[in-house]
Amino acid sequence: MDFKKSLKERKILFEQNLKSFMPDEEGLCKTLYESMNYSLKAGGKRLRPILLLETYKLFGGKESERIMPFAAAIEMIHTYSLIHDDLPSMDDDDLRRGKPTNHKIYGEGIAVLAGDGLLNEAFEIMVKASLNLDDKESALMAMNHICEGSGTKGMIAGQVVDLESENKDINIDVLKYIHENKTGKLILKPMLAGAVLAGASKGEIDNVKTYAKNIGQAFQVMDDILDIVGDQDKLGKNIGSDEENNKATYPSLFGLEKSKEIANELIEDAKLSLKKLNKEDEFLLNLADYIVNRDY
Amino acid sequence: MDFKKSLKERKILFEQNLKSFMPDEEGLCKTLYESMNYSLKAGGKRLRPILLLETYKLFGGKESERIMPFAAAIEMIHTYSLIHDDLPSMDDDDLRRGKPTNHKIYGEGIAVLAGDGLLNEAFEIMVKASLNLDDKESALMAMNHICEGSGTKGMIAGQVVDLESENKDINIDVLKYIHENKTGKLILKPMLAGAVLAGASKGEIDNVKTYAKNIGQAFQVMDDILDIVGDQDKLGKNIGSDEENNKATYPSLFGLEKSKEIANELIEDAKLSLKKLNKEDEFLLNLADYIVNRDY
Repeated sequence: MDFKKSLKERKILFEQNLKSFMPDEEGLCKTLYESMNYSLKAGGKRLRPILLLETYKLFGGKESERIMPFAAAIEMIHTYSLIHDDLPSMDDDDLRRGKPTNHKIYGEGIAVLAGDGLLNEAFEIMVKASLNLDDKESALMAMNHICEGSGTKGMIAGQVVDLESENKDINIDVLKYIHENKTGKLILKPMLAGAVLAGASKGEIDNVKTYAKNIGQAFQVMDDILDIVGDQDKLGKNIGSDEENNKATYPSLFGLEKSKEIANELIEDAKLSLKKLNKEDEFLLNLADYIVNRDY
Repeated sequence: MDFKKSLKERKILFEQNLKSFMPDEEGLCKTLYESMNYSLKAGGKRLRPILLLETYKLFGGKESERIMPFAAAIEMIHTYSLIHDDLPSMDDDDLRRGKPTNHKIYGEGIAVLAGDGLLNEAFEIMVKASLNLDDKESALMAMNHICEGSGTKGMIAGQVVDLESENKDINIDVLKYIHENKTGKLILKPMLAGAVLAGASKGEIDNVKTYAKNIGQAFQVMDDILDIVGDQDKLGKNIGSDEENNKATYPSLFGLEKSKEIANELIEDAKLSLKKLNKEDEFLLNLADYIVNRDY
């Protein structure tokens, strides 16, 4: 299976582009820019920007380089959320992707500001890109999707409920709310942004929604599973932290085997809704499979 | 002088409008919304949104209600910056506008997320408003000004250098950098946003720039002065905190009298550039005077 190779190619291509959006590490504010870049360069799967770019291509988008700022913005938003999540007042993590977390290197004050900076920068580069696009309405619709995904009814809401659920017994509805918002929205919304930037129809967007929601949920179920059975080196973070923090997870609610079944079912449904689009797209089909088969 | 009355009228009108942009305090994420609203409702002069709206009107803008989301966004950005500034890892303040700071009520984790939420919400309401405006290019230009003002070459940069300058001897250039970015940009950029939303010409915008830069600098000089001679009850915050934190300020570098002179000169220049526009606008002229004469 050549999928891992094609995923890696896209990751490398995106990272080359991402560099051009990173601030130069100079001037009175050097520390801030270093801190932002430290976390942006820390790696990761780059899944969210790749999903945006692939969905754009799926619907016939031909100018990937012009919408690259939207992909970079998504990665900045994801990165800022990790920096703030890792703070002592939140998850209090020392390690992220095998490296010390941002505040461990730069201190808490700069880490808060680097997160703020990345969120602001994400909007700034999208706004500047939109000024250069002919179809400003689609650009604004794409930005609207991304704002909603990262916002107070999206990713931030998920993080709040996650934070407040620590050391509490929560039911499946609350767990789903956390997954849907904390992780799911920033998988769903970049795909919808890619779709509207390419001019997809409403009906087409509905199928993308089903695909994205399912892979998002499956991704999170797998994250929970990997926190138990994963390889610490490959994951680049401490395993067992969910259990240690008394976090409700799919395995803690349903057991390991049932959780794997749930993930598989979600992925099958995702692939089905993609096939309904009648578009040849091996990459997104294989990506769905990859999500349940990944080991990091 | 009726100026205080007309300032108060604008403040009340803006606050009535701001309410409609506040999240309903319900659902699983209730605490977050309460925390955001707590700081939004804490008062303040509402100077930044008023400046945006007044500049819009100065250049003939007639649809204040349609650009109100931009004004609300500015206040959300200002409010988020205060919440994060007050955190223990930054200025570590317990009191803001006479009330306990956000993290004192809701805890540090929620305070970080409430700040993130307000910044995201600011962009979200501007994007949604832009989708409803006919002139999407001007809307994007206005958003660009606001992003630049609050961003990593604007307000956040100022906050970083301010944070890193504590307990250090700094020179006038660094102090000016802090003022220009931390406070100045979020006075300048809302005015430029108001100007482009009303379709002001490039020449007109240059005069607005001079006015805004000068009142912004004077505002900060006065803040430094009031931290020494101000009335704690009127200011709603502890006075003497700059000296306590060994912060470089205008009075610490130039003395109190010379600092007042500097503020007065800046205001005279500001009024001059406003008069060059040949527009009848008592409010913005009086506002300039108010900045050096205010006692809170």
